[in-house]
Amino acid sequence: MPQGPAYFRRGAGSAAGTGERLRVPTTLSPQNPRIALAHDLRTPAARRDQGRFVIEGLTMLEEARRSAVRPLELYINDEHRAAVPAERFAAYEQDGTEVFIVPARAMARISDLDAPPAVAAVVPLPRWTAAEILARPGPVLLLAGVNDPGNAGTLVRSAEAFGAAGVLFGRGGADPFGPKVVRATMGSIFRLPVALVDAEELPAAAAAAGRPVIATDVDGEDLGAAPLPANAILAVGNERRGVRDWLPRWDRAVRIPQRATAESLNAAVAGSIVLYVASRVK
Amino acid sequence: MPQGPAYFRRGAGSAAGTGERLRVPTTLSPQNPRIALAHDLRTPAARRDQGRFVIEGLTMLEEARRSAVRPLELYINDEHRAAVPAERFAAYEQDGTEVFIVPARAMARISDLDAPPAVAAVVPLPRWTAAEILARPGPVLLLAGVNDPGNAGTLVRSAEAFGAAGVLFGRGGADPFGPKVVRATMGSIFRLPVALVDAEELPAAAAAAGRPVIATDVDGEDLGAAPLPANAILAVGNERRGVRDWLPRWDRAVRIPQRATAESLNAAVAGSIVLYVASRVK
Repeated sequence: MPQGPAYFRRGAGSAAGTGERLRVPTTLSPQNPRIALAHDLRTPAARRDQGRFVIEGLTMLEEARRSAVRPLELYINDEHRAAVPAERFAAYEQDGTEVFIVPARAMARISDLDAPPAVAAVVPLPRWTAAEILARPGPVLLLAGVNDPGNAGTLVRSAEAFGAAGVLFGRGGADPFGPKVVRATMGSIFRLPVALVDAEELPAAAAAAGRPVIATDVDGEDLGAAPLPANAILAVGNERRGVRDWLPRWDRAVRIPQRATAESLNAAVAGSIVLYVASRVK
Repeated sequence: MPQGPAYFRRGAGSAAGTGERLRVPTTLSPQNPRIALAHDLRTPAARRDQGRFVIEGLTMLEEARRSAVRPLELYINDEHRAAVPAERFAAYEQDGTEVFIVPARAMARISDLDAPPAVAAVVPLPRWTAAEILARPGPVLLLAGVNDPGNAGTLVRSAEAFGAAGVLFGRGGADPFGPKVVRATMGSIFRLPVALVDAEELPAAAAAAGRPVIATDVDGEDLGAAPLPANAILAVGNERRGVRDWLPRWDRAVRIPQRATAESLNAAVAGSIVLYVASRVK
């Protein structure tokens, strides 16, 4: 076993079962109820009930830090202790994060990844409403039935990059805080407001906010034909069935011109191009 | 076990081990040498040596068909026979494709997917050279160190959609015929020329073809500032390190304007936006 970094060797604390003197982090067994609670966070219902979600890996942990999101709990994979910057985790504890060391087997229960990551953390679930997002400045991206979590997360990332007010996740598609979505956002999930929305409530909410709904649709006008309103709700549809399947009506539709021989563009690509074009409006 | 479709029940042939009369498809055991050869196709070297690659699932099989790509071998998962259109597979055999039924365990050796698909096929590896691609009309996409196979495949799909001449895969990044790349192309891999290219040979090849190399780079000019030449080589870089790490020099660089707080865009999104903008040049 590799020597742990200084943080884990100094100090007076002692963690049961490791045979190693640790200042603070407690080693949890895979049966610890905390692990079961974290494991439950793979489902949207548990995330809503607990008001928390899981992030995985050092990159996402760093993204949380630079977005001023403080983890409630931080789990360090016993087999990767040497990969973990020691000072960083002492600082987490000083900020009130509970820090635990867990065997790889327990990390595999917390994490959705095939290979248990070096770290995982439980962070507070943001609580934005669709109305709050619609009240912010900038275009709003609507995921109208986007199922693929990688596409959904990539679209949150693009929405932040292009200055959107937030992302509305159409109910029935990918959940905004699922592990694959969170990973694909590359940290944007910590900064850009997201909320679920029902297809039934969307038209009235859009009208109340004075925002036109612009769908990406094969029968729409050429995307470059006319500027997109700066306050538009830009709807990107399901990977196979388009926007229409989730939202039957819209104010305007745009089409991304492309060769007829290709399958339609990837949903994350299509939505990102529309966001890019909208961001060019002066 | 569900009843197989008519194709598998009619006729005079008999396949060992199934207890079911089949007209033609032979049931292969997981130990059959053909399975081992197909399994080997997960590596670029075996794909080059055998001159073949693997496609997975009914959607990709359908894409091959509509692209006039005839499989050399077709494998049907014994557990999914009922999902397979019977007439289709009789037609494959008439066209010279060898059709086999394999147990799910053998399909798991052929396929890269977590859940063995209903069908997989071995198809001929296209043999394009970089020079041939550079001689075709339209812009060329250069993957300058793109490692993520999903991003690479999505970019092939976008390149076809936006009328590119082909895609050059920078050596050292994702291989164009790896299973994850092939899946993400959604069939474009059957239609759009792709080839490997070395960083050392690229500048001379570009010059010989009279094509400027335009990199996507944070220090480039605004993407919308000036039109992109219709014959450009559009370079998109590694997910973390950009184009520069793979290709030290270029003729011009463009930047996709975005908010400073976001991580850079997903590589597939960034490259697709550049392709979109290039396709708008009249």
